[in-house]
Amino acid sequence: MGKKIAIAGVTGAVGQEFLRIIEQRNFPFDSLKMLASSRSAGKKIDFMGKTYTVEELTADSFGGIDIALFSAGGGRSKEFAPAAVKAGAVVIDNSSAFRMDPEVPLVVPEVNADAIAQHKGIIANPNCSTIIANVPVYPLHKANPVKRMIVSTYQAASGAGQAAMDEMVQQAKEVLDGKPVTCSTLRYQLAFNLYCHDSPIGENGYNEEEVKMTKETHKIFSCPSIGITCTCVRVPVMRTHCESINLEFTDPITPKQVTDLLSTAPGVSILDDRINNRFPMPTDASGKDDVYVGRIRQDESIPDNRGINLWVAGDQIRKGAALNAIQIAEKLL
Amino acid sequence: MGKKIAIAGVTGAVGQEFLRIIEQRNFPFDSLKMLASSRSAGKKIDFMGKTYTVEELTADSFGGIDIALFSAGGGRSKEFAPAAVKAGAVVIDNSSAFRMDPEVPLVVPEVNADAIAQHKGIIANPNCSTIIANVPVYPLHKANPVKRMIVSTYQAASGAGQAAMDEMVQQAKEVLDGKPVTCSTLRYQLAFNLYCHDSPIGENGYNEEEVKMTKETHKIFSCPSIGITCTCVRVPVMRTHCESINLEFTDPITPKQVTDLLSTAPGVSILDDRINNRFPMPTDASGKDDVYVGRIRQDESIPDNRGINLWVAGDQIRKGAALNAIQIAEKLL
Repeated sequence: MGKKIAIAGVTGAVGQEFLRIIEQRNFPFDSLKMLASSRSAGKKIDFMGKTYTVEELTADSFGGIDIALFSAGGGRSKEFAPAAVKAGAVVIDNSSAFRMDPEVPLVVPEVNADAIAQHKGIIANPNCSTIIANVPVYPLHKANPVKRMIVSTYQAASGAGQAAMDEMVQQAKEVLDGKPVTCSTLRYQLAFNLYCHDSPIGENGYNEEEVKMTKETHKIFSCPSIGITCTCVRVPVMRTHCESINLEFTDPITPKQVTDLLSTAPGVSILDDRINNRFPMPTDASGKDDVYVGRIRQDESIPDNRGINLWVAGDQIRKGAALNAIQIAEKLL
Repeated sequence: MGKKIAIAGVTGAVGQEFLRIIEQRNFPFDSLKMLASSRSAGKKIDFMGKTYTVEELTADSFGGIDIALFSAGGGRSKEFAPAAVKAGAVVIDNSSAFRMDPEVPLVVPEVNADAIAQHKGIIANPNCSTIIANVPVYPLHKANPVKRMIVSTYQAASGAGQAAMDEMVQQAKEVLDGKPVTCSTLRYQLAFNLYCHDSPIGENGYNEEEVKMTKETHKIFSCPSIGITCTCVRVPVMRTHCESINLEFTDPITPKQVTDLLSTAPGVSILDDRINNRFPMPTDASGKDDVYVGRIRQDESIPDNRGINLWVAGDQIRKGAALNAIQIAEKLL
């Protein structure tokens, strides 16, 4: 029994990935409505042997829809998700609009799939860098509660959307040709350069991306006591986020125990070949479902063997956004 | 009164930077001998209005030389630095060959210039990522001892030499042209990708670059009790290393105190504009002498306001190598 699906923001990088994943996972649907801004309305998209016409996203788009996948930006989610819920759809929202709403479950299926049942029409998809950290950290936290987590990210251009990916390519050509670098979607030169995440900065000096890692992890783990600090950085990589994660546990833990726990953890692939110096790279994780984990090491600067360093890589568009949302939809069925 | 200088490894990226810095700083020299491997011997180099012929680096290269700047790899330093010392030269060695030798001072002039006087012929230049961390961390440590330091690096191609920089450019062109990517000097694709530092990995899982950060910092600060853990990563940037540094201090410290301490610290430039989201980038630090510091924030995951996050950027070839060595030579004079 298929469902009636709508995708809001279908022409974006995440919207396009929704389509690929629906096809790859054979997600059961009876009908599919493709929605985007008025700018993209009328565009034709071929999908699974059928040609769809993109319709303008409005409050009236959701009659008869069972599941609405939103990835059209926080403003559009705030504007149109309530209308979709009113029309009877369950909204799975990829924006930050509802994530911290206590009425809205914030879900990484490998961590808190149970929370889905509590939804009142909207389920929030966490931020990409949060999901990619949470998938490998949660199975460790469950076995031995994490007391403190220090994350430095290496975030791909895709997190800023398809236009940012295209502009990074353009910038790279400009640098190679010795021409001035275009910064229109990207705030600064990203090709052959990097910069701290340019989301708005709060009074304490942390940008929104860093605050998301802390607050969303607290909510997803149902554990607001974990100390979390984060430095988020945009790097000239296309679509995979990497993260250097330092963990302080409650009890002693060895790299071997971490490896054992992660080797059976859902959504995790271990790539930790010290002999051949082969660890997760963006080129490994791009287009893949799993979060790749390597560099599993004891952090000897924490006493009693309670410290571990990890290096993780996950596809930002896929597990960081579209795949996680489709997995939520699968759990809903 | 000028000195008789020799540069071993003059054709490399650091060797070429030695020349630029000698000219820019008007470093006093009477004569300059340009040395490199037999492959480069005979090559002509124009420098400050004179044409020099590169000579082959041998044990007999150092007669009459006062100061020998070595950046020709650890093997050549081990082979030829003792001969240079025997011939009466003071060797300033950019390789890792002698850094941990207790008889050899390991010097960041902003930190431990005093150690230079104890030399017995060789003074070691620390590893690039160590220098770039040490310059901003030491003035804080002096004011309020650092108990623990967690570093994640974003290291440029230049750390692997000129050939690596050239290959990264070639790789970028190949990726943009949809061609297979050449990995000859670089172990993996670096353009539009990144990978954990590919230096040899020890039994505890740390690579040599990470071990250097710990051991060299202990020696330079004369403080082996600081807990240090490090994750070193190569990113597709040309010549500036960035580092995300998390510091736990002995006593409470505020971002304002850190900013005040660093605003008068030698070799440090603060670039920490929260309103305009403007923090150190590789494009800021490249070609500059100072280490740039920004993102100075309280780490609230450490109790009692004893935690601080920093983001730093320093030119790897310059302060990370050639400039630091020339500064040591200046102190020698």
